[in-house]
Amino acid sequence: MHKIYFATGNAHKLREAKNILGEVGYEVEQLDCDYPELQADDLETISAYGARWCADKLDRDVMVDDSGIFIDALNGFPGPYSRYVEDHLGNQKVLKLMEGDTNRKAVFRTVVGFCLPGGEPHTFIGEVVGTISLEERGVHGFGYDPIFLYEGQTFGELEDVKKNRVSHRGNAMRKFAHWLESNPR
Amino acid sequence: MHKIYFATGNAHKLREAKNILGEVGYEVEQLDCDYPELQADDLETISAYGARWCADKLDRDVMVDDSGIFIDALNGFPGPYSRYVEDHLGNQKVLKLMEGDTNRKAVFRTVVGFCLPGGEPHTFIGEVVGTISLEERGVHGFGYDPIFLYEGQTFGELEDVKKNRVSHRGNAMRKFAHWLESNPR
Repeated sequence: MHKIYFATGNAHKLREAKNILGEVGYEVEQLDCDYPELQADDLETISAYGARWCADKLDRDVMVDDSGIFIDALNGFPGPYSRYVEDHLGNQKVLKLMEGDTNRKAVFRTVVGFCLPGGEPHTFIGEVVGTISLEERGVHGFGYDPIFLYEGQTFGELEDVKKNRVSHRGNAMRKFAHWLESNPR
Repeated sequence: MHKIYFATGNAHKLREAKNILGEVGYEVEQLDCDYPELQADDLETISAYGARWCADKLDRDVMVDDSGIFIDALNGFPGPYSRYVEDHLGNQKVLKLMEGDTNRKAVFRTVVGFCLPGGEPHTFIGEVVGTISLEERGVHGFGYDPIFLYEGQTFGELEDVKKNRVSHRGNAMRKFAHWLESNPR
């Protein structure tokens, strides 16, 4: 079974990748590789750079992922800096920024980057389109989940099982899996 | 005259460095080096990484700089992502985030990074402490200048000459110049 190395410290993400890539015949192994995370307006640049950096450094087939929430009325903010903004401002401040905005559209996005040693990186984009709620709701998940409305419920109100079914990260990994089927290693 | 290479695309910064480092006997030459700009909570990490990357790649003595505004009531936001936030949100949204905040303290900060090929990077921090105004004032400068109050005027109300005298970037460069005097190349 061909092996793909996933540079992540997150056990939940690792399990998700093992399940999804396992279905198309690949084994996923965790990789301890603290790659440089770039500043960029888009996640593609960040994931592509990270995957190539690890692949070249460790001479292995490497995947990485990066996620963010892109809010329409805020010109895509916080985007690639979603974790920083969550840590430094939090959801209440994000809601304050959107006071009076009628355009509530937001996109949760994950980009998986994949690269072979010496090769060009590939990227796979997964998205969920929803809206920003007027207040925080729900106790599940983390980060922006309580203010991200999808089909009438916030991600904070969804059980993990249901959220994983529609999740942006799952979508990105499934695209990567399909690509591997037509581009076998 | 020993040469230091400044990785910047900004003619104004280059002139400032030429003046300040020229006074202690160093020549500054512009360097075209598009180094990876990291994500990090502090500017030191970003400047140190950039300087080392250029120095090692081009086998020269390289300086870089990075700047941001750190707002106390917002836990340091926007900090290293000041340019992104300026481009995507703008000053009016920053003022909105601070509505009702009585703690208006903010620090304009520049960190100069300097590295010799194969060496460890050094960083030099320049700061100006001020407050965030209640509304935009003045037509000079750019970015956060119109909302940064220093001794009764915003940086947007100050002529360049006066602003440069107190500027965070000038402070950081002068610290670097003093260091060069005691650590000659």
